[in-house]
Amino acid sequence: MAPASDPSPASTDAACVILPAAKTPTMTPTMTLDGIETPAALIDRTLMMRNIGTMQSRITALGTRLRPHIKTSKCIEVGRLQQQAGGRGITVSTLKEAEEYFAAGFDDILYAVGIAPQKLDRVLRLRRAGCRLVILVDSLAGADAVIDKGRAETHAFEVMIEVDTDGHRSGVAPDDDLLIEIGTKLDRGGAILTGVLTHAGSSYGLSTPEALQQMAEQERSRCVRAASRLRAAGLPCLEVSIGSTPTALSAQTLDGVTEVRAGVYVFFDLVMANVGVCRPQDIALSVLATVIGHQTDKGWAIVDAGWMAMSRDRGTQAQAVDYGYGAVCDLAGALVDGYVMSGANQEHGIVARRDGVPDREIAQRFPIGARLRILPNHACATATQFDAYQVVDGDGATRIWSRFHGW
Amino acid sequence: MAPASDPSPASTDAACVILPAAKTPTMTPTMTLDGIETPAALIDRTLMMRNIGTMQSRITALGTRLRPHIKTSKCIEVGRLQQQAGGRGITVSTLKEAEEYFAAGFDDILYAVGIAPQKLDRVLRLRRAGCRLVILVDSLAGADAVIDKGRAETHAFEVMIEVDTDGHRSGVAPDDDLLIEIGTKLDRGGAILTGVLTHAGSSYGLSTPEALQQMAEQERSRCVRAASRLRAAGLPCLEVSIGSTPTALSAQTLDGVTEVRAGVYVFFDLVMANVGVCRPQDIALSVLATVIGHQTDKGWAIVDAGWMAMSRDRGTQAQAVDYGYGAVCDLAGALVDGYVMSGANQEHGIVARRDGVPDREIAQRFPIGARLRILPNHACATATQFDAYQVVDGDGATRIWSRFHGW
Repeated sequence: MAPASDPSPASTDAACVILPAAKTPTMTPTMTLDGIETPAALIDRTLMMRNIGTMQSRITALGTRLRPHIKTSKCIEVGRLQQQAGGRGITVSTLKEAEEYFAAGFDDILYAVGIAPQKLDRVLRLRRAGCRLVILVDSLAGADAVIDKGRAETHAFEVMIEVDTDGHRSGVAPDDDLLIEIGTKLDRGGAILTGVLTHAGSSYGLSTPEALQQMAEQERSRCVRAASRLRAAGLPCLEVSIGSTPTALSAQTLDGVTEVRAGVYVFFDLVMANVGVCRPQDIALSVLATVIGHQTDKGWAIVDAGWMAMSRDRGTQAQAVDYGYGAVCDLAGALVDGYVMSGANQEHGIVARRDGVPDREIAQRFPIGARLRILPNHACATATQFDAYQVVDGDGATRIWSRFHGW
Repeated sequence: MAPASDPSPASTDAACVILPAAKTPTMTPTMTLDGIETPAALIDRTLMMRNIGTMQSRITALGTRLRPHIKTSKCIEVGRLQQQAGGRGITVSTLKEAEEYFAAGFDDILYAVGIAPQKLDRVLRLRRAGCRLVILVDSLAGADAVIDKGRAETHAFEVMIEVDTDGHRSGVAPDDDLLIEIGTKLDRGGAILTGVLTHAGSSYGLSTPEALQQMAEQERSRCVRAASRLRAAGLPCLEVSIGSTPTALSAQTLDGVTEVRAGVYVFFDLVMANVGVCRPQDIALSVLATVIGHQTDKGWAIVDAGWMAMSRDRGTQAQAVDYGYGAVCDLAGALVDGYVMSGANQEHGIVARRDGVPDREIAQRFPIGARLRILPNHACATATQFDAYQVVDGDGATRIWSRFHGW
């Protein structure tokens, strides 16, 4: 990729970067957040850099590469920091992401969603412009579409086969004959079969280290098994790509794996805290909100951030700790223990005690005009509600990083 | 407002416009939707015009004005069609909406979220530019902030007092002494007290005509009661503004009401169908998606629209019919009975039978590359995931209308 323009404390060397140990942020944001309109998406840069370092050091220590999934941030600056920390290439969930990052100098991109035949023209445009964009199939029909397009255009697409290792979503079972059929079809059809890919998305539903380690090993071993079967059939399979934030942080070995993909770790969120792979105080993304009213009898403060800002994601609803629409922090980012956004309309959030006991002093605790930070259930869903991040540095200075959305 | 540039079958006269009776859309979209990248947000213009006409005719027949809430569409063209059908002014949920619509010629705007003191500068800029922007308070502290700013700027803000008629969210109880105190403070403090406003948001939780009519009457009578108390105290109260889509479509009388606000009716959605104020086939907004894979044993088709396209809104989860992340229609917009988006990841949707019985013929029914339309649970939440609408006319022609988001 192109040289990054954003200065970073992280090394640009490929070796793992160990960032400073955890500590409470000591910024003085009251001097710098005053001018920011609410609601706004804040990135605590110190926390984000630590999260990036934690994941990178873990994957490096296990002897493989990290290919960050940039669907969480959709922000060029964040992607550059992940590369500077040691990431190799990026993963994307849309062709828009591939186009935006390629335009910013990223040229090693994996599009980790099964390809729709109608999207091959856009893929081809990127590849012909010099982007090493790899696509994904998990069916004979999908492979046929890729081969047909490749022949019509005299182009060899690079393709991975998606493998289903946990019944979560897409992919071919590792022991299914279909795996070999798809591989053979691609290889003989003129496409470049680069490897196998899986995503153990069901790891999001776990919450103990034992279960997470077991799922990580299942993800690894089944994907390696698929690769071995392809190779035994005389087919090429250079890459074995696995990953999710929970399994990436739980794996005890990555033998046979050539790269790990993970995304939400860059910010973390309350769902991940309930899964057990971070703490609430590690979450680098929050929504800045202003108190606009109260219902004192009910112990409610009303803020100007509703589900339009937080997203409708209620991912903690079925987890050990239900945070409603988010956990409440003060302006400096310190958790206000026991307070959550208990309800949300489009532009109204209700802040109340999580245990449901009305706080009759709520208007004194959070007066009109006071500003709070709300930690999100799901960082990917909350971040996408905003056009930009307000990035708060360790010294309290803020800057704006734009982000994009759409397809 | 400025003359609308978009031609419309609806009259520009203030009188109610009765649009043609319901019928199945007969467009030929396969000739025109082919070039649209997925996922995309489609507006069926015929259905939208009928929805606009239904609401406008009802409110006109009950003898009052409709002030459409444009937070649902955030699209200038849609707002113009609502005005052409007889709407008088607009309601907004953010100052960004006010600024965008004012720039497009709308100058009668109600900002129906309690004002944060820090936002008064933006309000003032709009008002000084000629926008009749009315703001909202429900506390003495909020009133103080408005008065202080008005005095400092030698400006009389126009202000309404929010009234709580159903315990749903914000507002002062109609019989609370605080109502008179706030009104007195505003009136004597140099602000222009224009009236009272309420929103019976709890109507979204109802599902019988009787309950809806009762809630509509409660919303009306309690807001009129608040207005009467202000007037009895010698305070001005010209406007009595009420509304939600369910109550607006259920009210039997609007005596004493000067305007009704409603938003989601412009598109309708599956939540409204469960509430009972529309049918699924009235829903004008859908998400166009492409099939990218299958899990035949489970009866799943995987499409390239996940929660990033549909939003995370699961509003039908606790209703009579749970549609998952949306109801499945064919490319022409006809419901495929019994099929829903049963699950969603960021860019993957799982299409399956609603009753959970695996359809082993799913790959034949919805082959790779096939296109489907998915009706949303909540139109406001789904629409905001997109930067533009693809508007499908009755003759099958499509055009693009941009929309905005952010604050």
